[in-house]
Amino acid sequence: MIIQKLFSEFLGTALLLTTVIGSGIMGENLSSGNTAIALLGNTMATGAMLVVLISMFGPISGAHFNPAVSLVMALTGKLSQKDLAAYVLCQLSGALLGVVIAHAMFDISILQHSTKVRSGVGQWLSEAVATFGLVLIILTLLHQKSQNIPMLVGLYITGAYWFTASTSFANPAVTLARSFTNTFSGIALNSVAPFVAAQVLGAVIAIFAARVVASSR
Amino acid sequence: MIIQKLFSEFLGTALLLTTVIGSGIMGENLSSGNTAIALLGNTMATGAMLVVLISMFGPISGAHFNPAVSLVMALTGKLSQKDLAAYVLCQLSGALLGVVIAHAMFDISILQHSTKVRSGVGQWLSEAVATFGLVLIILTLLHQKSQNIPMLVGLYITGAYWFTASTSFANPAVTLARSFTNTFSGIALNSVAPFVAAQVLGAVIAIFAARVVASSR
Amino acid sequence: MIIQKLFSEFLGTALLLTTVIGSGIMGENLSSGNTAIALLGNTMATGAMLVVLISMFGPISGAHFNPAVSLVMALTGKLSQKDLAAYVLCQLSGALLGVVIAHAMFDISILQHSTKVRSGVGQWLSEAVATFGLVLIILTLLHQKSQNIPMLVGLYITGAYWFTASTSFANPAVTLARSFTNTFSGIALNSVAPFVAAQVLGAVIAIFAARVVASSR
Amino acid sequence: MIIQKLFSEFLGTALLLTTVIGSGIMGENLSSGNTAIALLGNTMATGAMLVVLISMFGPISGAHFNPAVSLVMALTGKLSQKDLAAYVLCQLSGALLGVVIAHAMFDISILQHSTKVRSGVGQWLSEAVATFGLVLIILTLLHQKSQNIPMLVGLYITGAYWFTASTSFANPAVTLARSFTNTFSGIALNSVAPFVAAQVLGAVIAIFAARVVASSR
Repeated sequence: MIIQKLFSEFLGTALLLTTVIGSGIMGENLSSGNTAIALLGNTMATGAMLVVLISMFGPISGAHFNPAVSLVMALTGKLSQKDLAAYVLCQLSGALLGVVIAHAMFDISILQHSTKVRSGVGQWLSEAVATFGLVLIILTLLHQKSQNIPMLVGLYITGAYWFTASTSFANPAVTLARSFTNTFSGIALNSVAPFVAAQVLGAVIAIFAARVVASSR
Repeated sequence: MIIQKLFSEFLGTALLLTTVIGSGIMGENLSSGNTAIALLGNTMATGAMLVVLISMFGPISGAHFNPAVSLVMALTGKLSQKDLAAYVLCQLSGALLGVVIAHAMFDISILQHSTKVRSGVGQWLSEAVATFGLVLIILTLLHQKSQNIPMLVGLYITGAYWFTASTSFANPAVTLARSFTNTFSGIALNSVAPFVAAQVLGAVIAIFAARVVASSR
Repeated sequence: MIIQKLFSEFLGTALLLTTVIGSGIMGENLSSGNTAIALLGNTMATGAMLVVLISMFGPISGAHFNPAVSLVMALTGKLSQKDLAAYVLCQLSGALLGVVIAHAMFDISILQHSTKVRSGVGQWLSEAVATFGLVLIILTLLHQKSQNIPMLVGLYITGAYWFTASTSFANPAVTLARSFTNTFSGIALNSVAPFVAAQVLGAVIAIFAARVVASSR
Repeated sequence: MIIQKLFSEFLGTALLLTTVIGSGIMGENLSSGNTAIALLGNTMATGAMLVVLISMFGPISGAHFNPAVSLVMALTGKLSQKDLAAYVLCQLSGALLGVVIAHAMFDISILQHSTKVRSGVGQWLSEAVATFGLVLIILTLLHQKSQNIPMLVGLYITGAYWFTASTSFANPAVTLARSFTNTFSGIALNSVAPFVAAQVLGAVIAIFAARVVASSR
């Protein structure tokens, strides 16, 4: 039923944001200014929780937690046009709840405005590449009827946190929500739109690349 | 037979506490005051051993190692009322043995009293969220007859050590036992009761959330 | 079809190099001069992405991404002589594209010349050992019809980054491409040829060792 | 055939020691004196390679790489008395070869004598506990016909490197061989005998514990 699917997207995205932001705060608090160590903790937590959340919620809603992924699913006929808007709404509101929970746990202001500008061609290219890779992997593995999608998506983000210059947001809901935290993982609100544009661009290109890859089997 | 189940809960919880406390001491000893590095080692060891212990002891006793989990199993009819008390007793005594073994290995006083106050709304919310997530995952995966529960619980705790402000105790037996170590992972005895209350609250809420999620299949 | 296989080798090798070089730059940028922490991030990203890329592209092209592996496959009759040259060409050009993408994401010069000399008997032995292990594992697991080759190759490289003195290039295409980056993972152009020679030597010896191991079943 | 089994034990133990000692040297060289970071790299490499080596060589020789494990297998009727001596000889000589390879790769003296005294009740208890856990896990998982033994043994050692005060040698061949390296992972020759005694004691106790656990199914 659609209600449970939406609950799954809402709760899953909330827990994902709690993880991303909470582990960023923890890393920043404990690492005495060595950002690489903070990012190691942030990466390990995010990668691990993605495997868990996608395993749990995948059989229910597909475990997108990501408007770019839901858009791709709608464009490739795996999600109805009608459900798309509802999915995205739940992802956005879940993401915001996740921010609130993370801030409350760490006893800091519930909603904040990030002052961390993330801008420039390198950053935008990073987001396009990160989302391209994410969507290519998902489409290819779905086509191959892989049983390992949760683990492989978790490992992909583990890698992408480090190999992209932007630490791989790769998700419009995550990007917008992270503008409401002025901590390790924040992004200034006026940096959000170009990030989202780059993500959508990367996602759409991945649909074509996935067709080339898939046709080979 | 019940004796073997109790032995499994006793020994598993002992090895879990040995891991949590031992790796905390090791991290603190070696990390030259960079707490994030100590927590990385503590996390990696705990996550890895949870996968091992739940894989090993799961087929025997269910591998709860956690009174909150046993309570949930009793409330949802998966553990008899009578066995609940015995499980909890074995978990508590096993946890205490684990503390003793860790201290003996590192040549420090066998039983200590932690002076580390862990208190406040953020900490309690952290414990409620951590236990909510743990129980939601276990119930959902059991409902889906997942074969990957050991790995996913290990990964969940790996994430939760970083995304909660309390480093995710999420276990009343672990919480009480950790009041007997004045090392990295300790908690002052008078901080224990609110932690346990928050954990039980989170666990009970998770039963309801799991019903919503489960009804969707 | 061969076109898709070549696209798979090209794109997979590109993403591999983007990972190796990008995560090296990220590690160097953030780790305040503590090279071990940079290498931890570089290792985690590379190991994780290898599992992803081999899982995705394995069913299509075999996911070699490595001329030494393709050579071994040709020598053991698993790849036609004719395809070998095409595979290697795609790996080399993909690797170069990966370097370009990594540099563009981090806003640094698109093509660079590494000044990092990596030379001496220890380095060459390291490359021979690393490639010997890699090929031995692949051949043995193929012989055993293992389903876990992607994970095990990723774990092998995770280990080999640390146990060899050269951080385990173990791949002629990767080695050559890394001469075009003057960052963490670079290698001076005149250090490339002996590295490649050592890699090929290790790969060939592994064919014989794999025969001894395989004959035991 | 026995020859291949012995080759498997010899080569597997050699690669294991190369990993343990090589990654220890790498960690020490790069970590600017922060021992916890060195141990993180050492742990990650050893855990990863154990999964690889046991996966590869398990179907051939059982992948003991450890005289304490072979002794347990002989005592429980899974290895003939006659093969035991041959297994142990191959493990010891393979371990020594591994030390030589690691030293050669890092361009340091081929055979060294460790001056690192590891002694005292805490250290010996650590070794007994570490080997007890290792043997208990192996026997229990064999009894349960688990398919995940390679991964679980790798994860166990990952944990045990951190939760024991001795960093968990848990292997007489590894212990003896590590007396021939004066680097991060070394142990003074006169500390070896009590370590081995503690390991054998832990292994034998584990046989009894495994019987209690196994009888419950």
